[in-house]
Amino acid sequence: MDATFSTLLSRMQELKDLGGVIGLATWDQETYMPPKAHQARASQLATLQGLYHERLIDPRLGELLAKVAAASPDERAMVRVLGVERDRAMKVPAAMVKAMADAQSQALSGWRKAREAKDFEVFRPALEKLLALRREQADAYGYEAGGERYDALLENYEPGMRVKRLTPVLAQLKEKLVPIVEALCSAPPPADVFANKKFDVEAQWRFTVELLHAMGFDLEAGRQDKSIHPFTGGTHAQDVRLTTRLNEDTPLPALFGTIHEGGHGLYEQGFLPDHFRTPLASAPSMGLHESQSRLWENVVGRSRPFWSHFYSGLQKYFPSQLGHVSLDAFLAAVNKVEKTFVRVEADEVTYNLHIVLRYELEVPLLRGDLQVKDLEAAWNDKTKATFGLTPPTPVLGVLQDIHWAWGELGYFPTYALGNLYSASLYACAKRQIPTLEASIAAGDLLPMRDWLRKNIHNEGYRLEAEDRVKQVTGQGLTDVDFIAYLKDKYSALYGVKL
Amino acid sequence: MDATFSTLLSRMQELKDLGGVIGLATWDQETYMPPKAHQARASQLATLQGLYHERLIDPRLGELLAKVAAASPDERAMVRVLGVERDRAMKVPAAMVKAMADAQSQALSGWRKAREAKDFEVFRPALEKLLALRREQADAYGYEAGGERYDALLENYEPGMRVKRLTPVLAQLKEKLVPIVEALCSAPPPADVFANKKFDVEAQWRFTVELLHAMGFDLEAGRQDKSIHPFTGGTHAQDVRLTTRLNEDTPLPALFGTIHEGGHGLYEQGFLPDHFRTPLASAPSMGLHESQSRLWENVVGRSRPFWSHFYSGLQKYFPSQLGHVSLDAFLAAVNKVEKTFVRVEADEVTYNLHIVLRYELEVPLLRGDLQVKDLEAAWNDKTKATFGLTPPTPVLGVLQDIHWAWGELGYFPTYALGNLYSASLYACAKRQIPTLEASIAAGDLLPMRDWLRKNIHNEGYRLEAEDRVKQVTGQGLTDVDFIAYLKDKYSALYGVKL
Repeated sequence: MDATFSTLLSRMQELKDLGGVIGLATWDQETYMPPKAHQARASQLATLQGLYHERLIDPRLGELLAKVAAASPDERAMVRVLGVERDRAMKVPAAMVKAMADAQSQALSGWRKAREAKDFEVFRPALEKLLALRREQADAYGYEAGGERYDALLENYEPGMRVKRLTPVLAQLKEKLVPIVEALCSAPPPADVFANKKFDVEAQWRFTVELLHAMGFDLEAGRQDKSIHPFTGGTHAQDVRLTTRLNEDTPLPALFGTIHEGGHGLYEQGFLPDHFRTPLASAPSMGLHESQSRLWENVVGRSRPFWSHFYSGLQKYFPSQLGHVSLDAFLAAVNKVEKTFVRVEADEVTYNLHIVLRYELEVPLLRGDLQVKDLEAAWNDKTKATFGLTPPTPVLGVLQDIHWAWGELGYFPTYALGNLYSASLYACAKRQIPTLEASIAAGDLLPMRDWLRKNIHNEGYRLEAEDRVKQVTGQGLTDVDFIAYLKDKYSALYGVKL
Repeated sequence: MDATFSTLLSRMQELKDLGGVIGLATWDQETYMPPKAHQARASQLATLQGLYHERLIDPRLGELLAKVAAASPDERAMVRVLGVERDRAMKVPAAMVKAMADAQSQALSGWRKAREAKDFEVFRPALEKLLALRREQADAYGYEAGGERYDALLENYEPGMRVKRLTPVLAQLKEKLVPIVEALCSAPPPADVFANKKFDVEAQWRFTVELLHAMGFDLEAGRQDKSIHPFTGGTHAQDVRLTTRLNEDTPLPALFGTIHEGGHGLYEQGFLPDHFRTPLASAPSMGLHESQSRLWENVVGRSRPFWSHFYSGLQKYFPSQLGHVSLDAFLAAVNKVEKTFVRVEADEVTYNLHIVLRYELEVPLLRGDLQVKDLEAAWNDKTKATFGLTPPTPVLGVLQDIHWAWGELGYFPTYALGNLYSASLYACAKRQIPTLEASIAAGDLLPMRDWLRKNIHNEGYRLEAEDRVKQVTGQGLTDVDFIAYLKDKYSALYGVKL
């Protein structure tokens, strides 16, 4: 190995280790940390993030990146990915980072108070401040000629994606979804087979661990714990931490939360040992990461083949609650399509409409075409237009998501991208492995995992997300597979022509 | 606050935060980390420790320490403590740190293999290497004229302590202990009231949490978990992590392990908010830290007043196992004095003899008067002389402790210091609070905790350990209180004149 590359590699490893430890401290905060440690942990995380930033912008790292001679495609990719991260970090002055952190903290507190007061006005001033800073930051990052501010924020989550590319995709997706939603919501709704029953949380836990095992998630290189908001974190490909939420009144959050996070977790466990502690041991985008969780949660995890095997296991855990519920009734219930207020509870058919709604507000907010003072009205108008509903309280409307309080503008589209990619990847896997669904129906999920491992996980951050998908499926971002998947699945489930 | 001090303070906070995160990663390693993460965690810890060291020896920190004008005694103490830590770090070149880490890793692996093979020779070469490096390191640290190498290592654990001061104290202690041990071991041994019984581990767990609560350990600012080797760690005074060990065959490790670690934990939770994230939020020595765990575990936790209240609670958890065991029989069993091979299982009377044995080997090892090749024979000779026993295997002899494999020479005496200080502190507390034992007998442990909090915990690292003890009790290191405590307690328990 080139001596310069070897020095650079140790810098990469140091950054990755720091990132891993930040992951540990964050995971611990949501799982085992005692409540009074809150302030101490905030300081510890700020110190770690400060050190990470300092090491990233260290001039010596810049010199190493400039002069290194990469000896292989992987080395070239490492240098490229770290270079991009460093360039972006260099563009944001320390004062702006500090101002953003303060504004985030204000906005989070304002958001919480506004939710308590059920009053968007309580959140408004802090959001205005944060938006102004995000616009400044976007300008500091910069964007291509012919592009716009929002591109610079998209780049945080979905490198390479642009408004110009995304807008028509989402517009077309919306256009295709509306009639499907209408048709399904006009049909008689499936029965709620979980209502008025209790589901022992210990039994839920044991079943979710069985599911993780079946998915091929390595519980010797990761673990599952409980948290209020499920997430995937950890410190390394061999130390992947999932959380799930147990609710005695319904097993759905645990079941589909575990499968969802398990999908993220398999991605993290699937990086190559050669990429450990380098920038390549990471997903190229949040959208591609989300494609894995959604593929497992929805495309596989809510499918008839999947439950034709696993349902009897679930029934054994809950004989009195589900013993007399047929597979058909169960499948109908876990795939119920409904116009609702809340994104996180939305089914996979309406879900993307929630995303498009937010995207159509975020872009004009960044452009300055929409003011924060008009945001609640705009939200409510769009909710009415999209779902025919008016939020009875902003808690079910403009205040429902934490993302804006975090300043995470540009994040929402990645959920939709994840949905679209998940359908394209699954369609491709099915073409390449004709026995795929038969395996799933036999309870063997490893062919699915191994196909994703080979085509997505092992690749790490060698290519940008859309390029990766294109190399696997032959095409990039498209709604064709997703719409075909929905029509096929839901026409069968609902017995309607879509 | 002086501008220089304020800059220095942020450096102190950064170091303390890094130390806290190292604590978290270490705690996690022993509690929840998945097994395959072992290598990744080792890298992460090495990176954090490297960063800590780098920040500590940063020349800019040296300048700040040199030019700062402390405005209060606490500020002065912070500057002093950090200055000492930095000076010591500066004295050890990076190459020596690296060589030591490699030698430790070799020695640990050699120690494990030697235990498997039950053969000291397997460990010997690695220990020789490590000892040579420790001697080099001691010379790099340096020591006062008239002192010796071992002083430089003692300073790692018990700042201010010297061989010249310690040797006569330990020699006298041994001299006084020998006849006590002889008298007690000649008396009929108490019955083992735990033998051939099973103790549900969940019940053990619940009782230990009750004990922590009674001790005033704040479970909102700390937690208890399970681990193979119990320890106290954590990230901050408001995030203190204890572990305990549950064994179905006997409740003793859980009971006295929890009380012991709880004593350490109360110390950590007792630092002043004004000292958080500064060098003052730490104990001045391992010996003083150990005085807190030993005071709670032995002086309080194996006493008649303590169990006259808590025993009925324990009996409720284990009615069939202990319901018919009298308080007297229980107390006799948990205070059984016995000549044994293994330090960690030793009672409080013989315990210090195990320490003196190690001290009497370590000092000549460092001086070069004892060679590693002769260590096993020397160990066995001393075991014979002290306890009249010959280890049937080195696993019960020279290979029993991990400390030397860690290169931790100079650590053992701190256990004895902890025992001596614990008795002196308790005797002083009893003089100052005449109702202390009555409170304990009534199950109210808070007067004990609060006295320690005020006199020891809140003081943090304002003074060196012995100076602190002297300020509280009027005298420094002495065996007078410890011997008086043993004679008083064990003459009553064993009905013999001591």
